[in-house]
Amino acid sequence: MEVNTQSTLLLVLDLLGTFAFALNGALTAVRVIRIDIVGVVTLGMITALGGGILRDIMIDDLPPSTFSDWRYLTVAAAGSLLAFFARRLERLSTPITVFDAAGLSLFAITGAGKALDFGLGPMQAVILGTITGVGGGTVRDVLVRRVPVVLTSELYAIPAIVGATVLVVCDRAGVPGLPAALGAAALCFAIRMIGVRYDLHAPRPQGFDDPDRPKRT
Amino acid sequence: MEVNTQSTLLLVLDLLGTFAFALNGALTAVRVIRIDIVGVVTLGMITALGGGILRDIMIDDLPPSTFSDWRYLTVAAAGSLLAFFARRLERLSTPITVFDAAGLSLFAITGAGKALDFGLGPMQAVILGTITGVGGGTVRDVLVRRVPVVLTSELYAIPAIVGATVLVVCDRAGVPGLPAALGAAALCFAIRMIGVRYDLHAPRPQGFDDPDRPKRT
Amino acid sequence: MEVNTQSTLLLVLDLLGTFAFALNGALTAVRVIRIDIVGVVTLGMITALGGGILRDIMIDDLPPSTFSDWRYLTVAAAGSLLAFFARRLERLSTPITVFDAAGLSLFAITGAGKALDFGLGPMQAVILGTITGVGGGTVRDVLVRRVPVVLTSELYAIPAIVGATVLVVCDRAGVPGLPAALGAAALCFAIRMIGVRYDLHAPRPQGFDDPDRPKRT
Repeated sequence: MEVNTQSTLLLVLDLLGTFAFALNGALTAVRVIRIDIVGVVTLGMITALGGGILRDIMIDDLPPSTFSDWRYLTVAAAGSLLAFFARRLERLSTPITVFDAAGLSLFAITGAGKALDFGLGPMQAVILGTITGVGGGTVRDVLVRRVPVVLTSELYAIPAIVGATVLVVCDRAGVPGLPAALGAAALCFAIRMIGVRYDLHAPRPQGFDDPDRPKRT
Repeated sequence: MEVNTQSTLLLVLDLLGTFAFALNGALTAVRVIRIDIVGVVTLGMITALGGGILRDIMIDDLPPSTFSDWRYLTVAAAGSLLAFFARRLERLSTPITVFDAAGLSLFAITGAGKALDFGLGPMQAVILGTITGVGGGTVRDVLVRRVPVVLTSELYAIPAIVGATVLVVCDRAGVPGLPAALGAAALCFAIRMIGVRYDLHAPRPQGFDDPDRPKRT
Repeated sequence: MEVNTQSTLLLVLDLLGTFAFALNGALTAVRVIRIDIVGVVTLGMITALGGGILRDIMIDDLPPSTFSDWRYLTVAAAGSLLAFFARRLERLSTPITVFDAAGLSLFAITGAGKALDFGLGPMQAVILGTITGVGGGTVRDVLVRRVPVVLTSELYAIPAIVGATVLVVCDRAGVPGLPAALGAAALCFAIRMIGVRYDLHAPRPQGFDDPDRPKRT
């Protein structure tokens, strides 16, 4: 498997996704709790880089690659600072959602590809791709004392799981890396955007989707 | 020290403990917050595998062994899905508590044994055995925004600490691995079940066990 | 870069900082939630050792050095137990704040120095120094379900960032390790104590420092 994350195209997309995650993550944090500039930058950077760091701990690629690479740190810090200084950006919620979906797709696919590169099995690669996509936002939610959105509603983890699974299947089937990666990312992106557009949710446990039941989260 | 976790008996017990942890963890999560299927499976698997993953990060056995082994992933996913589809299982609270205590005992003992195998000292082995037993449930509690039960009440960490300590002392005293492991696990299990039966709690700080003091957790 | 953490002076200071962090961390935990002795000791030790453990995971020095060293474990456990048995110590809030600031300073500086020793870049060293200083308290706050203080108010992370930055700049400029470390730690300590004395806070995002806005944290 060669998802060549060094190729210029994927690098640029990955940095764009990092920027969108940091911006979106920092804006979310500002909305939820009263934090200072340290909190905004910390939470933005954790949203952007946390998933990749968790993946790299699990596959033993330490120090984590995005943490070692100053370009990722710089882009993540820039996105967070933009959220701090220009909170009016929040009104641009549509483009931010689109970029965030792009980041999710790229992170899920490059995360699964990297796990395969490091010799992990297909189940592990799908899980690690998903963690790469959703892990940073989950850590941020824990820090701002919010139940992680990914556990409760929306189609957020599901597109990442589907995209990572397609990538792993393509790898097993001998489909070349770059087309497989772009196709899987496009699929993840499409599912995510359809979910946002039609407000789709993952199924809930029996007896728990009763609309009259008081919401406790 | 050779706690041979490959022996069929211990493997079967360990997988049973994993299943019980996943089932119990997922049922607990469903009770506490409103989550979807992604949340149920994620939280069940984290409860079952999280402690071992934390231990393996600390002793530098990466990727974590239970994460690499598809049998553990499959059993943990199965236990979680069972909780999702058959919430009525909750009524079987006694057998689930028993299995959970068995899982705690086995995880604490195999965790401490593995730490010794990797050359860590006796204090470290006791701590890592305890983390193996209680770490997964603690991460789950953080994700569902609950103060970890292990910090606040019940005899949950204490049996794990006692069991792991007995194993470490036996190891130093030259007691062979398998009898020591089974004896230590049995002791942990007995303390845990006695604690459940008689509703025992660990001591609280001075001035904080006043029953009239409003509970803030 | 040779911040020789083995030198007796630095070791004694580091153990003092560990003790202060454990004591302060355990007292904080007791104030915030109702916990038992397991919780007090766990949270005190996590406050004292958590930052160094996070740093060592990131730089791949596993098992984490302070976890492997029984002196740190013992000192951290002693500080936590003191908080459990002598809650009246809380009245000594001034000396505890001073020791805590000393711990913050030493942890930030030795953390950044260790990151440089392990070949990480300057940005990474500053971040890891800061994590060493504030990481343990952050994990404790998450476990007791409090928004981490470091994200919301006070000058707590800022002195650590400044101290770590000074250390990294000195290293690049060829200033010898021990004077640089002591100077950077003194600067961090001074900023922290000035912040406490004059109740200084880091800037908040636009529109969020309105005193009439209800506090949601």
